[in-house]
Amino acid sequence: MDKKTVRYAISGLGRIGRYHSMNISTRVANAELVAGCTIMDADKQWVKENLPHLRIYDDYDEMLEKEKGSVDAVAIASSTAVHAEQSIKAIEAGYHVFCEKPLSLDVDEAAKVVETAKAHPNQKVLCGFSRRFDASYLDAKKKVDEGLIGKPMVIKAQTGDKQHKDDFFVKYAEKSGGIFVDCTIHDIDLVLYYFGEDVVPQQISAIGSAVIHPELAKFKDCDNAFANVKFWDGRMANFYVTRMMTHGQEDYTEILGTEAKITVNKNVNNNLVTISDPHGVRHEAPEDFYARFEMAFVTELNEFTKYIVNDKPVPFSLDANLKALKWAKYLQHCVETGKVLNFNEKGEPIDY
Amino acid sequence: MDKKTVRYAISGLGRIGRYHSMNISTRVANAELVAGCTIMDADKQWVKENLPHLRIYDDYDEMLEKEKGSVDAVAIASSTAVHAEQSIKAIEAGYHVFCEKPLSLDVDEAAKVVETAKAHPNQKVLCGFSRRFDASYLDAKKKVDEGLIGKPMVIKAQTGDKQHKDDFFVKYAEKSGGIFVDCTIHDIDLVLYYFGEDVVPQQISAIGSAVIHPELAKFKDCDNAFANVKFWDGRMANFYVTRMMTHGQEDYTEILGTEAKITVNKNVNNNLVTISDPHGVRHEAPEDFYARFEMAFVTELNEFTKYIVNDKPVPFSLDANLKALKWAKYLQHCVETGKVLNFNEKGEPIDY
Amino acid sequence: MDKKTVRYAISGLGRIGRYHSMNISTRVANAELVAGCTIMDADKQWVKENLPHLRIYDDYDEMLEKEKGSVDAVAIASSTAVHAEQSIKAIEAGYHVFCEKPLSLDVDEAAKVVETAKAHPNQKVLCGFSRRFDASYLDAKKKVDEGLIGKPMVIKAQTGDKQHKDDFFVKYAEKSGGIFVDCTIHDIDLVLYYFGEDVVPQQISAIGSAVIHPELAKFKDCDNAFANVKFWDGRMANFYVTRMMTHGQEDYTEILGTEAKITVNKNVNNNLVTISDPHGVRHEAPEDFYARFEMAFVTELNEFTKYIVNDKPVPFSLDANLKALKWAKYLQHCVETGKVLNFNEKGEPIDY
Amino acid sequence: MDKKTVRYAISGLGRIGRYHSMNISTRVANAELVAGCTIMDADKQWVKENLPHLRIYDDYDEMLEKEKGSVDAVAIASSTAVHAEQSIKAIEAGYHVFCEKPLSLDVDEAAKVVETAKAHPNQKVLCGFSRRFDASYLDAKKKVDEGLIGKPMVIKAQTGDKQHKDDFFVKYAEKSGGIFVDCTIHDIDLVLYYFGEDVVPQQISAIGSAVIHPELAKFKDCDNAFANVKFWDGRMANFYVTRMMTHGQEDYTEILGTEAKITVNKNVNNNLVTISDPHGVRHEAPEDFYARFEMAFVTELNEFTKYIVNDKPVPFSLDANLKALKWAKYLQHCVETGKVLNFNEKGEPIDY
Repeated sequence: MDKKTVRYAISGLGRIGRYHSMNISTRVANAELVAGCTIMDADKQWVKENLPHLRIYDDYDEMLEKEKGSVDAVAIASSTAVHAEQSIKAIEAGYHVFCEKPLSLDVDEAAKVVETAKAHPNQKVLCGFSRRFDASYLDAKKKVDEGLIGKPMVIKAQTGDKQHKDDFFVKYAEKSGGIFVDCTIHDIDLVLYYFGEDVVPQQISAIGSAVIHPELAKFKDCDNAFANVKFWDGRMANFYVTRMMTHGQEDYTEILGTEAKITVNKNVNNNLVTISDPHGVRHEAPEDFYARFEMAFVTELNEFTKYIVNDKPVPFSLDANLKALKWAKYLQHCVETGKVLNFNEKGEPIDY
Repeated sequence: MDKKTVRYAISGLGRIGRYHSMNISTRVANAELVAGCTIMDADKQWVKENLPHLRIYDDYDEMLEKEKGSVDAVAIASSTAVHAEQSIKAIEAGYHVFCEKPLSLDVDEAAKVVETAKAHPNQKVLCGFSRRFDASYLDAKKKVDEGLIGKPMVIKAQTGDKQHKDDFFVKYAEKSGGIFVDCTIHDIDLVLYYFGEDVVPQQISAIGSAVIHPELAKFKDCDNAFANVKFWDGRMANFYVTRMMTHGQEDYTEILGTEAKITVNKNVNNNLVTISDPHGVRHEAPEDFYARFEMAFVTELNEFTKYIVNDKPVPFSLDANLKALKWAKYLQHCVETGKVLNFNEKGEPIDY
Repeated sequence: MDKKTVRYAISGLGRIGRYHSMNISTRVANAELVAGCTIMDADKQWVKENLPHLRIYDDYDEMLEKEKGSVDAVAIASSTAVHAEQSIKAIEAGYHVFCEKPLSLDVDEAAKVVETAKAHPNQKVLCGFSRRFDASYLDAKKKVDEGLIGKPMVIKAQTGDKQHKDDFFVKYAEKSGGIFVDCTIHDIDLVLYYFGEDVVPQQISAIGSAVIHPELAKFKDCDNAFANVKFWDGRMANFYVTRMMTHGQEDYTEILGTEAKITVNKNVNNNLVTISDPHGVRHEAPEDFYARFEMAFVTELNEFTKYIVNDKPVPFSLDANLKALKWAKYLQHCVETGKVLNFNEKGEPIDY
Repeated sequence: MDKKTVRYAISGLGRIGRYHSMNISTRVANAELVAGCTIMDADKQWVKENLPHLRIYDDYDEMLEKEKGSVDAVAIASSTAVHAEQSIKAIEAGYHVFCEKPLSLDVDEAAKVVETAKAHPNQKVLCGFSRRFDASYLDAKKKVDEGLIGKPMVIKAQTGDKQHKDDFFVKYAEKSGGIFVDCTIHDIDLVLYYFGEDVVPQQISAIGSAVIHPELAKFKDCDNAFANVKFWDGRMANFYVTRMMTHGQEDYTEILGTEAKITVNKNVNNNLVTISDPHGVRHEAPEDFYARFEMAFVTELNEFTKYIVNDKPVPFSLDANLKALKWAKYLQHCVETGKVLNFNEKGEPIDY
């Protein structure tokens, strides 16, 4: 507390931006939110009611310019389309940067962010793969690192969104980059987290269907998909992604080692309440990703703030984030073309 | 955030005091911790390292005196023996008061706190029965109030502490007031929460044993005990309390209604990690009450701060806290004497 | 299979009699059912359709007389009122006897069965406390005996029947002997099973309410009740019995030892099916005791048949069954009088 | 019981043959085992001790010949290599035939069994895919058929064998036909069961690794493998198969529909016992497939016997068994070649 307080500006004050804003303001040690940028009237109104002391800007560049010296770090929670551009600008302007995932939907653009960050080694740059800050994934990581499961060899990971009966996901699909890029990127990130960033793919395959929303076909997207990845060292990963769950968000991960298996979210419960009634013995599932990962969102900004305050390196590499994006794109490619992708021993696709 | 910030002073900076201090400082909206009171060197050292900006006092009275105008609320996390005295002084000095449970081990003393609070209706006074702020108990309350279980008629509640192989609990027993007063008071509070504060006991009985720590007998205390309460309206409660659990903290509550049953903490899991290995399919339990209720501790001070900021009444009555203490004492009496206690229709013990 | 086949006659062909009849006929090794006794036309009709080769009698005495030499063992599944009488007659006529629980609702009558059995040591006599033959209770027993939980000190046991919205339980109450005698007798039996038959009660108390069926009051019975038992060696047992469950049968047992806890039926699932839908993540509970204990019923007759075939002693004593009945009666007494019962060190009630 | 008793002969008295023998003898209604065929001395000795009344043959053909008129049905539990041959002979000799899965490791041979069976429509022929007779899979089927999950669109199925530290699986691999043919064939069968036998594959892919037993590579086999199947109607199936589980047998199935999801064996428990101790809150998993599916084995022979007694058609087609074998072979092909297989709209592989 005696330590330096990190002053944040936030870009984007929509759903996720508001979560981050409130978290920085009330649940992050040594942090305060002082500025924000949005062109949306509704968002400005929300700020007025909830965080009236914020200095609000319409223009991102202006904010970066004017807040020099008053702001230490920029949290980027704007639309994905501008993640990369805004990250680069903020880094170049000397700010620490926390950017919501993904860095970009475009691999080259994302690569530029990574490059820019590397050119500014004294600034902290973190892309928000929130699961890495979730208490259960952290506990699993600790146990894996301690050798509890022997050598981790197989990962099964699922991202399951609650079904929307309306066309929410169809509209969303226009800009999401596809279900693997939007959702499975988290599961790919977990593979890099638990297998290590150096694991090299040998073959990738994927299948998908638009079950609930046939309209997704027009974006070459789907609402249910599977992918398999085989790595050169014999490890394997399997991904399932779906927007068809009717009980709630079900993100499920299994890490299978030579000596044991760790499962995260086997029971998919929202809290510790069980109901026993004519429907059976039951518990509710989280409504959405935020209900599942709220505390991970709080933790990631606490941790990011600590990196800044203590001037410690960010323990996660942006290279891994870039890799996750690339692999997600490959999966998207497989499901679109119906073909497998083979890789050389450097992990470069042979027939992409 | 634009709203008034509540400035806190804390009394007691031991284990629970430190939790509250860090929570107020970093996880409570509209709150800041500015002063603290302790005579312990270790605690002062901890403050120096963690919250160096605090104004630290040796003397509680001096703190109350000097912080007038600089502090709005006092959080009392000192030893139980001085809870009542410190609460009364702070209320009389014009502060809002958050007091760790219980108000006192002495019924008359506790009654004085309640009286004093009533004499100062413009100040907020809350006794920290943290379970009422736990997300799962809150969800259960909501469901009960919505009628999900019909009429709640039976409550089974258990407080289960992790077993200490050493004499921790024996030493602790000297000042704890007995296992029912120390632990079951939470379960009694839940009965008052779910059945309503007006429920009137008809008969109370209890049995107990000192299984793990026979030395507890010298304090007429035990480490395993059961109690039954029958109410005049036909409702019933059953309590089990134990210090014998080897897997961790297991606080378990069932609320049985005419149409359904709600269970809180049926699965006693620490997080969402499951391990499958030669020991079976397993998950870990929380280590202690704070591992189980950490977020409830954060929530209770957030809520308390909101009552102050918004000048809203505390929704829980101190009368209920007093009642819980009385009943806990009755249970202690039953286990010590081997007799049941009967009550008249006003809830006054007939043969106490 | 080469071994002697045990030829059974059955008394009573109602619900439970039919279960036993089909089990003996098709799921018990070395057993065959050859005769039956009932005065009910519906039951005779059922036999005609399902087991037409049976020799059917109206009169129990006649059956015992005529089947001498053709039948080895009698299974008694008639109404509880005649359990004792029929058992005694069969034993005296030289048959092995399997009698459904309880031996009687009357302690003296039950004692006579025990006495008669002891006078005929070459015949096998077993009272069907089916839980002792349930795979899970057997596994728990094995683990307790192997020392997994250290010394077993506390048992919490619940028998929970599915709620009947109609007056089924009210009609049933007329002849059931009261809820403790009808249901909790199983839980008492488990205490004798896990603590050993020599455990001596020091104090018994109980409370009860007629929540769903207030009409039960006319039989001094209730549909929800708790009881506590303290034993002279410091062990304790707690019983909950209810007819209020809306999800199904929930019979639940915890055996707490100094080193660990074993729970039987923590998850109350009917099978291995889980449903995830808008009601949550859920599984169904067994509909009734037979859905829960079907295989235990099959096992108990397989085991009983083995005792006969191999001429091995029945490993469970009838004394324990008698003791369970007595204790159940004491509980019934407590709930009716509102008093506790104290016992001398021989386990004789002081103030009964 | 009055009904005709089905007299069985069994071929093969090794592990699975003994299970079937005891089941037919003691747990199958209207069935008796009268003859058996084996050349193994150990098996003959076992029969002598356990089923001494059996007429035992060294030669299968001789048994078929001599038991004409004395035996109604043949249960084939010999080595997989002779399943087809023995089935065909028995059918042609006029017997009903129950054959352990698979019909053969060779598609053409299996096809001949199917053909032979069709040529003898008055005889019952069943291939023992035991999961179809498991209470939980049956309950899931009932719920799916009742529409509980809407339209079933996605199946995730896993067969997980307990890890053997020794070379058991390596030796076994010589004759198993590969992990997909040995294990996943059950999961494929479930797909045909829940999606219907007419579902037509569009694309199949698979990856595998020999993680625990690198020696498996010499048989082109593996101990961990994934496969994806996309069907022409947009449905999908995903298979995981492993011999790496250290907690026990974990066969797990999810059937995801447009309205809900059904999971079979989510909790992988062996029975209803939960242990709470320093290892956590845990339950044991079944040791192997028989511990998991024992009752399904009993049920399948009860059902098969009923088809004979009541002269009802076998409700499962041998065509589906043949199809399952073919698909398992395709998966094996994919994992060996590293290629995907595409199918025309008749379900014929294009590039096999």
